[in-house]
Amino acid sequence: MTGPAVTIRPFEDADWGVVRAIVEEVAAEGETYCLPAGLPEDRLRAFWLSDSATLVASVDGEVLGSAHMGPNRAAQGSHVGTASFMVSSRARGRGVGRALGEHVVDWHRRHGFRGIQFNAVVESNVAAVRLWQSLGFTIIGTVPAAFRRPSGEYVGLHLMHLPLGVPEAARPDSLAR
Amino acid sequence: MTGPAVTIRPFEDADWGVVRAIVEEVAAEGETYCLPAGLPEDRLRAFWLSDSATLVASVDGEVLGSAHMGPNRAAQGSHVGTASFMVSSRARGRGVGRALGEHVVDWHRRHGFRGIQFNAVVESNVAAVRLWQSLGFTIIGTVPAAFRRPSGEYVGLHLMHLPLGVPEAARPDSLAR
Repeated sequence: MTGPAVTIRPFEDADWGVVRAIVEEVAAEGETYCLPAGLPEDRLRAFWLSDSATLVASVDGEVLGSAHMGPNRAAQGSHVGTASFMVSSRARGRGVGRALGEHVVDWHRRHGFRGIQFNAVVESNVAAVRLWQSLGFTIIGTVPAAFRRPSGEYVGLHLMHLPLGVPEAARPDSLAR
Repeated sequence: MTGPAVTIRPFEDADWGVVRAIVEEVAAEGETYCLPAGLPEDRLRAFWLSDSATLVASVDGEVLGSAHMGPNRAAQGSHVGTASFMVSSRARGRGVGRALGEHVVDWHRRHGFRGIQFNAVVESNVAAVRLWQSLGFTIIGTVPAAFRRPSGEYVGLHLMHLPLGVPEAARPDSLAR
């Protein structure tokens, strides 16, 4: 990895302005999330901040990316987690996504999850697919033509999964939603 | 199919008492949904009635099952639908689920969806898996050990998909959420 080190820490309220700008930028690009552009602020906050935990990634004190994570399903499914990631267009390819991904995997391990699944990784988002594969995720399956790019092209959505061998005693009942 | 015909019609407010009892029964069984037992009524209503459309299935005027359906994702993903189904334990094996499934597929075709995906079909719910396969759905992939049965056994969750060949002009933009 080149460039200065990426620092990962929990999201704080003071980060919202910068994180909101990143979410709005990614929504406007329209290439990686099933997310309309131009959502009002309360919808954006609910979309990004209502999960179990939210992280930010910074380089030299500047917030350049964020991730949130938590159980993918309630009750009978709450032992498998999920997460979402966004990185500012100014910072892509600089290891911000990888640093966030490593911390997200670590968070799930520490909280006793038995696996992590990403429900909708856009097939044409090759950088993300390769990054998750490099962290050990595999493509479980692909829903064909499930994502419509801004160009009008239909591409698949990958379901990706990383098993975590977690002892039964550490199941994340406290995070069930 | 044996027995009297199954009638499918839109849900009406007067159906809620019976539908609620079916949802509570299925939640208490704990075998087919990632859904805690004992949810308060407002949570049950939100869970079952906040989708684009809800159907009920009746035999001789008695409501024995229900389904709801709508876009699986927002915006770039809103051309793929999803649905959920519940049938009273008194009526299983009598064609209620099949009748609901056929109407759900028809609803998606009429509204211009390009496919339907079921995100979490419990591997051990063999009757459901076979029913959806008989309607043309295939298993795209299975998240291993993603569902914890009441017995404590971990089983997989299938992602199932049915492609619908729908012309571009009929895309369901009006149902985007």
